[in-house]
Amino acid sequence: MNKPLNVSTFIGCEETYEKADVVLFGVPFDGTTSFRPGTRFAMQAIRTDSYGLETYSPYLDRDLEEVSVFDGGDLELPFGNTKKVLNQILEYSREVVKDGKKFLMVGGEHLVSLPTIQAVYEKYPNLHVIHIDAHTDLRDEYLGEELSHASVIRRCHDFLGDGRIFQFGIRSGMKSEFEWAKKHTYLERFSLDTLKEQIEKLKNVPVYVTMDLDVLDPGVFPGTGTPEPGGITYRELLDAIMHLQQLQHMVAADIVELSPHYDPSGASTAIACKTVREMLLTLAK
Amino acid sequence: MNKPLNVSTFIGCEETYEKADVVLFGVPFDGTTSFRPGTRFAMQAIRTDSYGLETYSPYLDRDLEEVSVFDGGDLELPFGNTKKVLNQILEYSREVVKDGKKFLMVGGEHLVSLPTIQAVYEKYPNLHVIHIDAHTDLRDEYLGEELSHASVIRRCHDFLGDGRIFQFGIRSGMKSEFEWAKKHTYLERFSLDTLKEQIEKLKNVPVYVTMDLDVLDPGVFPGTGTPEPGGITYRELLDAIMHLQQLQHMVAADIVELSPHYDPSGASTAIACKTVREMLLTLAK
Amino acid sequence: MNKPLNVSTFIGCEETYEKADVVLFGVPFDGTTSFRPGTRFAMQAIRTDSYGLETYSPYLDRDLEEVSVFDGGDLELPFGNTKKVLNQILEYSREVVKDGKKFLMVGGEHLVSLPTIQAVYEKYPNLHVIHIDAHTDLRDEYLGEELSHASVIRRCHDFLGDGRIFQFGIRSGMKSEFEWAKKHTYLERFSLDTLKEQIEKLKNVPVYVTMDLDVLDPGVFPGTGTPEPGGITYRELLDAIMHLQQLQHMVAADIVELSPHYDPSGASTAIACKTVREMLLTLAK
Amino acid sequence: MNKPLNVSTFIGCEETYEKADVVLFGVPFDGTTSFRPGTRFAMQAIRTDSYGLETYSPYLDRDLEEVSVFDGGDLELPFGNTKKVLNQILEYSREVVKDGKKFLMVGGEHLVSLPTIQAVYEKYPNLHVIHIDAHTDLRDEYLGEELSHASVIRRCHDFLGDGRIFQFGIRSGMKSEFEWAKKHTYLERFSLDTLKEQIEKLKNVPVYVTMDLDVLDPGVFPGTGTPEPGGITYRELLDAIMHLQQLQHMVAADIVELSPHYDPSGASTAIACKTVREMLLTLAK
Amino acid sequence: MNKPLNVSTFIGCEETYEKADVVLFGVPFDGTTSFRPGTRFAMQAIRTDSYGLETYSPYLDRDLEEVSVFDGGDLELPFGNTKKVLNQILEYSREVVKDGKKFLMVGGEHLVSLPTIQAVYEKYPNLHVIHIDAHTDLRDEYLGEELSHASVIRRCHDFLGDGRIFQFGIRSGMKSEFEWAKKHTYLERFSLDTLKEQIEKLKNVPVYVTMDLDVLDPGVFPGTGTPEPGGITYRELLDAIMHLQQLQHMVAADIVELSPHYDPSGASTAIACKTVREMLLTLAK
Amino acid sequence: MNKPLNVSTFIGCEETYEKADVVLFGVPFDGTTSFRPGTRFAMQAIRTDSYGLETYSPYLDRDLEEVSVFDGGDLELPFGNTKKVLNQILEYSREVVKDGKKFLMVGGEHLVSLPTIQAVYEKYPNLHVIHIDAHTDLRDEYLGEELSHASVIRRCHDFLGDGRIFQFGIRSGMKSEFEWAKKHTYLERFSLDTLKEQIEKLKNVPVYVTMDLDVLDPGVFPGTGTPEPGGITYRELLDAIMHLQQLQHMVAADIVELSPHYDPSGASTAIACKTVREMLLTLAK
Repeated sequence: MNKPLNVSTFIGCEETYEKADVVLFGVPFDGTTSFRPGTRFAMQAIRTDSYGLETYSPYLDRDLEEVSVFDGGDLELPFGNTKKVLNQILEYSREVVKDGKKFLMVGGEHLVSLPTIQAVYEKYPNLHVIHIDAHTDLRDEYLGEELSHASVIRRCHDFLGDGRIFQFGIRSGMKSEFEWAKKHTYLERFSLDTLKEQIEKLKNVPVYVTMDLDVLDPGVFPGTGTPEPGGITYRELLDAIMHLQQLQHMVAADIVELSPHYDPSGASTAIACKTVREMLLTLAK
Repeated sequence: MNKPLNVSTFIGCEETYEKADVVLFGVPFDGTTSFRPGTRFAMQAIRTDSYGLETYSPYLDRDLEEVSVFDGGDLELPFGNTKKVLNQILEYSREVVKDGKKFLMVGGEHLVSLPTIQAVYEKYPNLHVIHIDAHTDLRDEYLGEELSHASVIRRCHDFLGDGRIFQFGIRSGMKSEFEWAKKHTYLERFSLDTLKEQIEKLKNVPVYVTMDLDVLDPGVFPGTGTPEPGGITYRELLDAIMHLQQLQHMVAADIVELSPHYDPSGASTAIACKTVREMLLTLAK
Repeated sequence: MNKPLNVSTFIGCEETYEKADVVLFGVPFDGTTSFRPGTRFAMQAIRTDSYGLETYSPYLDRDLEEVSVFDGGDLELPFGNTKKVLNQILEYSREVVKDGKKFLMVGGEHLVSLPTIQAVYEKYPNLHVIHIDAHTDLRDEYLGEELSHASVIRRCHDFLGDGRIFQFGIRSGMKSEFEWAKKHTYLERFSLDTLKEQIEKLKNVPVYVTMDLDVLDPGVFPGTGTPEPGGITYRELLDAIMHLQQLQHMVAADIVELSPHYDPSGASTAIACKTVREMLLTLAK
Repeated sequence: MNKPLNVSTFIGCEETYEKADVVLFGVPFDGTTSFRPGTRFAMQAIRTDSYGLETYSPYLDRDLEEVSVFDGGDLELPFGNTKKVLNQILEYSREVVKDGKKFLMVGGEHLVSLPTIQAVYEKYPNLHVIHIDAHTDLRDEYLGEELSHASVIRRCHDFLGDGRIFQFGIRSGMKSEFEWAKKHTYLERFSLDTLKEQIEKLKNVPVYVTMDLDVLDPGVFPGTGTPEPGGITYRELLDAIMHLQQLQHMVAADIVELSPHYDPSGASTAIACKTVREMLLTLAK
Repeated sequence: MNKPLNVSTFIGCEETYEKADVVLFGVPFDGTTSFRPGTRFAMQAIRTDSYGLETYSPYLDRDLEEVSVFDGGDLELPFGNTKKVLNQILEYSREVVKDGKKFLMVGGEHLVSLPTIQAVYEKYPNLHVIHIDAHTDLRDEYLGEELSHASVIRRCHDFLGDGRIFQFGIRSGMKSEFEWAKKHTYLERFSLDTLKEQIEKLKNVPVYVTMDLDVLDPGVFPGTGTPEPGGITYRELLDAIMHLQQLQHMVAADIVELSPHYDPSGASTAIACKTVREMLLTLAK
Repeated sequence: MNKPLNVSTFIGCEETYEKADVVLFGVPFDGTTSFRPGTRFAMQAIRTDSYGLETYSPYLDRDLEEVSVFDGGDLELPFGNTKKVLNQILEYSREVVKDGKKFLMVGGEHLVSLPTIQAVYEKYPNLHVIHIDAHTDLRDEYLGEELSHASVIRRCHDFLGDGRIFQFGIRSGMKSEFEWAKKHTYLERFSLDTLKEQIEKLKNVPVYVTMDLDVLDPGVFPGTGTPEPGGITYRELLDAIMHLQQLQHMVAADIVELSPHYDPSGASTAIACKTVREMLLTLAK
């Protein structure tokens, strides 16, 4: 008898790294979270609870067993040193991009999207970003810190520049952030109604999708650090993912801000699981 | 002074068995649950929390105090022996049917609908089943077991045959289950939009309604073993119950898959309570 | 070095009493709660979690930092003596009204609205009340008690009389309460659809708005003593608040029935926080 | 077929009232609770969870099935009117005493012991009280109220007088309460070490035992409104119950202050269940 | 770049199967649990939370990194078919024993110890069993079922016979079970005081240790299906493990009945983790 | 009428800064926590729940109302920048020390003790530290970081040197940490038995007491990030505090590692509250 060590992956993601088209990995970092931490536990909870899902999506009529996804586990990161953490994420993402693979990163807090977007940008200087979120994330600094979950999209703008960032579902921010957005990004407040038409324009450019799950209403998704009432329903988010199918050149994506301990029912984790499945099937098509 | 032993029933269900038109009973079984068990506690929690409800339904403009319902408590079942459990449920349901009463059974996991549907079918060979659920429940077996919550509707098809099963709200299953359904059942994906028109056809045949509460969105109903995001709202479920009023020959029903411990807020149990009230008033009219 | 004692207010509500236009205060009383107590903890939880909010409302395009609100803390009330409690609330509210200020009171159970409405009525005999709630609250007594959360609107009618009370969103009550309402109040069942047109009529009279947050669906707002399924979404409540902007003479308001311990995710408290912000901005305009 | 309505009693307590030696009843009142309410749910939770217990006590080598106990359910009490509540408890207790039965009352907050002790005192003017608790409960008033959980033993002293009250395990109170106790009661701080020798003296007088479960360390018993660290272990409480066997004339008892929702693990409720079993077997011997 | 699939083991247990001296595996079965299910989640939770532990034991002055343990993951078992489940466990355990390795099995409910003890007994007919538990587990059947968590030690006696079973810490059972034990097993009630002297006698025979963690007081270990107050402290359990070092021929062991969801604080899971570490170090010495 | 802004302090700590002998302040930092974050919420929860306590200690026979303590609130700290955080704590502590006051700091994770000990050391170069904890905290670095909760005592040794650190209750660490301690600190494993005799030696030197509450058994104190089974009881901790009364020159102290969300019962927070009271009375004597 021979037996392998216990392997734990997201359901249906057991391809080897070499053969995989898409790499799934977790970034357990919540070091700049200002209100309630805990997103570090997200990917681990998602892996465990993914076995309550089917691998088949009746929305996309595709099956995880028909595509090839590698689950690389969670990055091992130091605690308390934000810059070093961001560097390690950047290096890992660069390698994946260099190896010609797409990736789906699961946070962690939203700041971890900065190095993954940067890694993709290095390869695709014409990168455009679709940002789905409750919060603007456009502060120039937060309590004196430039590297903060509240500044992540602003930091991306530092290298992407104007006309590259498309924000949807935004319902919280400082007045000055909304003002700033008028000049530098496309921003739809409260809903995703214009996503479809904006995607029309982005069809043929390289696109990175960063999805902060707190765009969902806290009634649907209470398991997050900063619940912001008045969000979208899960069906609206599914519709948005259906629109993403129109993108011809979606090169990477992330899903952030699940904090699983805050929703002991597991409903929030189930949402993250299903979203991971749909996004993997979207990337892998 | 004389005092009775402490009686505990669902609110307004204190009729004697002899005089009752409708029998309410609980089936505390979750033995084939594959993900998170706990539905065994459902009916007990529903009885306790029903006292947060009124007996009057402003939707139906009817009152539990105007109809006659007997609450028979929970069946006492052995643990770990699925066949024996199903037999005991079958016997109990047969007796109630034989005594000329309608019943509302509260699960437990969905497998417990198999014997109750069978008992009704024995009396009404022309029985049709309305199945409201997030999951297809059409597997031929699950990990080698034919008697499973994931197979319950398939097992019912074994004796009911084609053209008798009407499925609504389905948003999860294996690809092969959806394929199978195309040939053997009526299946609406994601919503209940066609329920009204299908009911039109079922108006005059005997109908059993089996309602898996996980058809609801987990945001609304997190207290269940396998939360499946993207479900219907409670208002949509209420609308469905309003449509059921058109049935001239609804003979029994069940409500399954509340797992109350997973929602410590009690909101999921409150939903089950209200649904029990509406379904009792529907059966008793 | 000099340092002040630790002050704790709702975010952005640090004006002195003298200079403030609006007074915010908490009433930690749940003494007649019949099902699940705990609303006494509401205002304290709201203060703490308000720091997860921004002070700016993108809905109203106004900022708490532009208006002047004083947070007076929670009243200190005795336990077990309902009449004495109501008297102390009455006295406090009278003072605030006498000092020419508007107020937003946060309960507590709904009975605490009786003395605050009374205090405002003493100054504005032509007072009209907009009542947003899941429950009629029109019982003449409850288990023999006239002073009960289930009777609070009936008690207000005792002095306000017919034609002054406008109820919205009501989906639970005894049949007799609904009958009574037909003669004595305006009552919309299940939704807030007619709020806008009713507000049109109330534009120029003094209005008090009493908002029982259990009008929201328990999926959205599980943190309450008596969750009643089938309620409105948070967006619908936000829309209602937008309609309130039409009122020229809104003189006071309250928000009641958050029971924060029942929703450990904090989503319900976040809803209360955001509603407090929007209502303060509405009162202060 | 004939079926009884669903009966719910503490395990093994299904004797009729007429034949029972001991009456078990619940008093779901927490109206003067100053910190965290919820003891109203205690007896209901105890009944449900008692089925995780055996009826046999290996400590006493006696079995609930060998004694005759009637479970009378919970009293139905109004909300918000402390005096009326206390009167109803008094009347019920009087009746039980008059019918020549012993009783075990389960609270509720500690104030509910006042009328039950009074009812027993009316029959046994020489009554002595053993009080096991973390708190002195000797305040003359609390926030102006004489009828308060914090005053219950002081109120009993009003009619019992000096030399009748024996307090054990006390580790919290105002300085003035400890001073007062020196003159009017027997009070052991922190532990139950002297219980055995005090019982020696009380062997032949009528004794009422009032047991506030918060005497236990919160590590053992977190499910209570006012957890007070530094308490006794459950084995120490079991030892105390063993000592109670020496009493020749224990006429009634109560167990108060379980607040089951605060301990979702059920461990606190399990403690209450086991204590109820041991106390019933002690009373019934 | 090359990357392995995400591996998830108990901390420090990353040896290959071939080279390992001790095999660690989980048995996620709770199918005969009569009160509160959930032990199926134990081993998964233990693996995750083991990273809060150190690999070094200051009690034994040994380190998991110095011994060789293989973590084989959880067995994949069908649901609802007790006999088939027990057979699969038996086969797996036999293989491990045949390959000359010791094992530590982590349940699951206690019934899963039946096939693992049987597998070891097949190799060591002189096997003796040390049973540490709150419950006798000596029923001949439970609600008609012979294969039940409440019968597991009785079933082991069926093949082991008299004089082979040593029970400690027992504080719950039917009177008849305690009577039966007097003739057929060694049974110490309430504590582990005689464990040391009994081990003296078992020093040179093959010994299997089955440890039901509910022997611990629920204050220490609330995360279990049937909390039984009055148990031992964790230090007492650690002392017992120290005594086990005297055994010269301990061949296998198990740890059962952690139900992690019932203790959201993680303290119960931490206890299981630490006990797994100490037992692995004991087996591997 | 005039009213102050809502003030929120620990019970009985309402002295002004100028007149206070002892300063109480919170440090809401958990940025290097490696397992489960959340200690940032500790002091806020302690303030709120302190109102379930009395101000009088029957252990010390002293009352908070007789001493003068100022509650300075929580420091406002940036997120994600460990060095800047430590600097701000250092500056605040220095000021308090310079103003001739003692302080009790409440964490936060244990790393926050580094700057407070340093501030006191700057004034008292002969400072000795009593360290009560489950963990050694003596790592030289953790995942490459020198500033970590796992290194805090090692970092203090950097400036204090040998013979100044006295560790008690330690039951977890790497083997190398225990080895290191043999040469550089006094370390008692598992218990506090030698605390009394060590205090005898420290009677007349300046002493800082740093108390990590995870020294308590997780059964008693589950509300912490890294529960380590096998700890001390709360009575043992109270005894230790009684021994501290012998110190003639205790100049400051801290209490760290309460993570209140992990214990929703509030029992852990109650322990922290009571410990704060006893330590304030110890410092203020």
